[in-house]
Amino acid sequence: MPLTRDQQAEIDRQRAETAATKRAVSPGLEEVLYQAFPVLDHGFVRVIDYMGDDAAVVQAARVSYGRGTKKVSEDKGLIHYLMRHRHSTPFEMCEIKFHVKLPIFVARQWIRHRTANVNEYSARYSILDREFYVPAEENLAAQSVSNRQGRGDVLTGSEAAQVLDLLRTDATHVYDHYLAMLNESEDGQKIDESRQGLARELARMNLGLNFYTQWYWKVDLHNLMHFLSLRADAHAQYEIRVYADIMVDLMKRWVPLTAEAFIEHRLHGVTLSKSAWGTIKRMLNGETVTQEASGLGKREWNELQALLKE
Amino acid sequence: MPLTRDQQAEIDRQRAETAATKRAVSPGLEEVLYQAFPVLDHGFVRVIDYMGDDAAVVQAARVSYGRGTKKVSEDKGLIHYLMRHRHSTPFEMCEIKFHVKLPIFVARQWIRHRTANVNEYSARYSILDREFYVPAEENLAAQSVSNRQGRGDVLTGSEAAQVLDLLRTDATHVYDHYLAMLNESEDGQKIDESRQGLARELARMNLGLNFYTQWYWKVDLHNLMHFLSLRADAHAQYEIRVYADIMVDLMKRWVPLTAEAFIEHRLHGVTLSKSAWGTIKRMLNGETVTQEASGLGKREWNELQALLKE
Amino acid sequence: MPLTRDQQAEIDRQRAETAATKRAVSPGLEEVLYQAFPVLDHGFVRVIDYMGDDAAVVQAARVSYGRGTKKVSEDKGLIHYLMRHRHSTPFEMCEIKFHVKLPIFVARQWIRHRTANVNEYSARYSILDREFYVPAEENLAAQSVSNRQGRGDVLTGSEAAQVLDLLRTDATHVYDHYLAMLNESEDGQKIDESRQGLARELARMNLGLNFYTQWYWKVDLHNLMHFLSLRADAHAQYEIRVYADIMVDLMKRWVPLTAEAFIEHRLHGVTLSKSAWGTIKRMLNGETVTQEASGLGKREWNELQALLKE
Amino acid sequence: MPLTRDQQAEIDRQRAETAATKRAVSPGLEEVLYQAFPVLDHGFVRVIDYMGDDAAVVQAARVSYGRGTKKVSEDKGLIHYLMRHRHSTPFEMCEIKFHVKLPIFVARQWIRHRTANVNEYSARYSILDREFYVPAEENLAAQSVSNRQGRGDVLTGSEAAQVLDLLRTDATHVYDHYLAMLNESEDGQKIDESRQGLARELARMNLGLNFYTQWYWKVDLHNLMHFLSLRADAHAQYEIRVYADIMVDLMKRWVPLTAEAFIEHRLHGVTLSKSAWGTIKRMLNGETVTQEASGLGKREWNELQALLKE
Repeated sequence: MPLTRDQQAEIDRQRAETAATKRAVSPGLEEVLYQAFPVLDHGFVRVIDYMGDDAAVVQAARVSYGRGTKKVSEDKGLIHYLMRHRHSTPFEMCEIKFHVKLPIFVARQWIRHRTANVNEYSARYSILDREFYVPAEENLAAQSVSNRQGRGDVLTGSEAAQVLDLLRTDATHVYDHYLAMLNESEDGQKIDESRQGLARELARMNLGLNFYTQWYWKVDLHNLMHFLSLRADAHAQYEIRVYADIMVDLMKRWVPLTAEAFIEHRLHGVTLSKSAWGTIKRMLNGETVTQEASGLGKREWNELQALLKE
Repeated sequence: MPLTRDQQAEIDRQRAETAATKRAVSPGLEEVLYQAFPVLDHGFVRVIDYMGDDAAVVQAARVSYGRGTKKVSEDKGLIHYLMRHRHSTPFEMCEIKFHVKLPIFVARQWIRHRTANVNEYSARYSILDREFYVPAEENLAAQSVSNRQGRGDVLTGSEAAQVLDLLRTDATHVYDHYLAMLNESEDGQKIDESRQGLARELARMNLGLNFYTQWYWKVDLHNLMHFLSLRADAHAQYEIRVYADIMVDLMKRWVPLTAEAFIEHRLHGVTLSKSAWGTIKRMLNGETVTQEASGLGKREWNELQALLKE
Repeated sequence: MPLTRDQQAEIDRQRAETAATKRAVSPGLEEVLYQAFPVLDHGFVRVIDYMGDDAAVVQAARVSYGRGTKKVSEDKGLIHYLMRHRHSTPFEMCEIKFHVKLPIFVARQWIRHRTANVNEYSARYSILDREFYVPAEENLAAQSVSNRQGRGDVLTGSEAAQVLDLLRTDATHVYDHYLAMLNESEDGQKIDESRQGLARELARMNLGLNFYTQWYWKVDLHNLMHFLSLRADAHAQYEIRVYADIMVDLMKRWVPLTAEAFIEHRLHGVTLSKSAWGTIKRMLNGETVTQEASGLGKREWNELQALLKE
Repeated sequence: MPLTRDQQAEIDRQRAETAATKRAVSPGLEEVLYQAFPVLDHGFVRVIDYMGDDAAVVQAARVSYGRGTKKVSEDKGLIHYLMRHRHSTPFEMCEIKFHVKLPIFVARQWIRHRTANVNEYSARYSILDREFYVPAEENLAAQSVSNRQGRGDVLTGSEAAQVLDLLRTDATHVYDHYLAMLNESEDGQKIDESRQGLARELARMNLGLNFYTQWYWKVDLHNLMHFLSLRADAHAQYEIRVYADIMVDLMKRWVPLTAEAFIEHRLHGVTLSKSAWGTIKRMLNGETVTQEASGLGKREWNELQALLKE
């Protein structure tokens, strides 16, 4: 369970408070505001705040004085048009803020997306909890043989058992020693009065990359979609994709028209090189095109074949 | 008057609508949401949307599960501490969206601040109105003699009259010819059926830099403060400073604690070089320090003297 | 001619100086370094400096200790792979700096690309030259009837003549009055000793959007490609596209492998929505698909038909 | 020693190659280009490439056609002026690229500076070396009692010995188990043919935050100074400050005038709040000001006293 009783109570308290606003409100997102959606074994994603809705995209595209929306069908058409033609600025007019708890190695991938605002829980300042990620057995994948950056089959039997055991044992040891170096017991007491305890900013270095951290992450809708197009993709590492998948669902609640257009044009859209598109056109003309004749390299040819079979 | 009757009606309609939200609400800003504050002769600033409040800054600094605020005095102390020590990320957790109408030459200065989101009214797509900036007589400054980038005394008499006349006459002519090239009358009718009319994206080039444009401008609180520290400063050009001054007032309504800390530590704070600070310390020790002995260049020395006299 | 004799002499002087460096050198770009390539009637683009070459992309992707390159064929394959899979960071490792002279209305489009560094010639500080853009007759396009943001046929006859006359006359007048307000003659002398002259930061507002400005514009290779993919595109306004076209040529000199991959995968690549791709696959299976059956809206359907005919 | 023989040979080979360029060259930086400066026990910083020099800052500020520099004294004056008045864009015209090897917990602080380009060595793709940071005894600081984010005295005796032992032992274990899970021996051989080996992207999570990673980090001079002003500061964590200190030295070689102005106005400059500056002025007028009378909070008062004593 990712939340302590106190944390859940704080969240419940905040969910119970309602105030009046003149701002645009997204009813779908209000329903689940502040609520923690569990991810992996100890992580979560929750929406802390948001600005704007589908109408705000339309409003910005029109630089209007009022709500700017016309009929739903017109708004929908405009949003699809903007998405298809890669207009980015109207989508930047919406903003969302998440609170995310995630393993450090996932956080390190995530933060490479730079056009977002981040406040991370500081292990220089505070002591981290004894919480680390151990994959479920069905996610214990072997190294892929064909793709140096990918996963192969799931490990089984004694190999799987040993891996899980090593991950658990090592994480337990490094955390025990983290506390020992800090000279702090689990409940925050000094262990040995004669010792000073190592500085927090140093002791943390003993922890593993599977330990959980947390942060506030705020991003505009355009950059959120960029993040999701990479991280909700089949090539993304499983441990970050599960976060992205939940965020796609939250996006559907927040801005349903934009989410639909995003899935249609970007997440499930297809990009082809000039030669790949030329190949398709020749095939549509009844020609049988081989890899050699296509002008495509072997890898790109295989990717195209895979797309055609999907 | 910067708004048409229709525009004012749209704004009034939107101001009248209220909905319930679980999000943080800033009561001071809600009072004036959507309202257009006049600037210069045809411009305005109005807040269209916002995310977060002073408590959101505190909440982010603590990466908390609930509101995160404690006593007001503690929150205030934390915000001052963050401001004094140049912590930027907690302030990035608040966001604000403005609708601004402004002369193009002001817009060109403004947009040099890149860490913001912008949607500008498109003169490729639409026709601009006959609205251009003419300075009030008391702002008709002569070129400064001492500072190539500054203003001197106010122009008077026939020189002032001639300048105002030229500005008005030229703007009127270029707008008349803009419509003529478009082959459109003021009320949107074709003037001459035998003509095609020049493309809008070309005709606009005849307009002057004093014509008004408008945009939606969205920025986080940290970058807003950076903008205001430069543009609400005495060295900023008058025509952009009047916008910044109103935005400082809006900031006081939105995040009063942060606004107070911003004014204290940044807007009215003082930065001294190592040598300037060394000079101050020698003076505090009773020494009489000359420019030569201070190690400061002439310009910096004069700036320091001015600061001491303020 | 866009350059004065003095400017050309300064450029020639700089082109004549050579020094030794241990850094990566791009021979193709060195050949034209500093050289001004004319654009429109008074504009130009010239490369002022650059960092890195194709090998730097490869080197960064491998985080290598030396040059990082292997065989040319392997480097080429890697660069195509990175481009196809939208890896952006290795391309960010190269940087280029341009000096560009361009009409203000073009500059206003250009600067919407925010991930670049800019230093613009300041009309607060200096006096602009009497240089303004007047389109060549073959570029004097009418407003498109079908597309509010596009151009239609070329204007001809008296309509063309009148437009050119208005553009020239108005620009001449506003510049004459700009000088009159500044109280400066063309050769920099005071006109009337009894006058003070309007501040430069104010007088500039009388100039039209077709006047030329200039700036230094520095950008990394990834963001340059993003700029070029939008501005060297057929939908871009002619007056910015001519700049982008020259920059594509300069890119070919600088990073030939990356330029080739960029043109293949992005500039001439094709992006299809999920439904458009589904339509293509049905057509490849021998099905005759109508717009109604495709699930595509009318506009997207027409765009797809146009792509198929290209 | 941070480099293998092969890596050193690659660096030496690259340092030996020289080519002719028309670009600006920084002689001081060329001398040490590619050279690895050791940091901590296994880390280093080395400059891989650069663009521009002090003259490029001047050139950009003047948007000039040639080198743009005048007398050294004028250039120096201009650079100091730009620094003092917080002009940022001319400094953005220079760019530098570093190759850095650093512990992961340091990398996590570093990457919070978002306005830079990064390519990190990928542990999804490759196997990390057995290299982890263990502090030298004189840097084994206790937790500060007064400042939750700071260091106190150096640990001694058995406490120090135990900490060092735990750090070394745990890092050794987690690395041994990392290889075991990968089913790879130290020299890259499969250990057990009957096993598949865990995917690299998963196995890495067992490693500690003190393991070394490396990256290419590219930044413009303005953002480099922002980074250095925070990380070469006395409040920065020691383990990142040692990197920043070396980078300040490299900056002195690269852009000596800018480095001098940076140290004078920013690194060793002083910023005071409105009330602190008011206090100073009252003191200069001979008044004895107490904390209560100053209007400053206790913390800020103490900081001001410390500044006065420095």
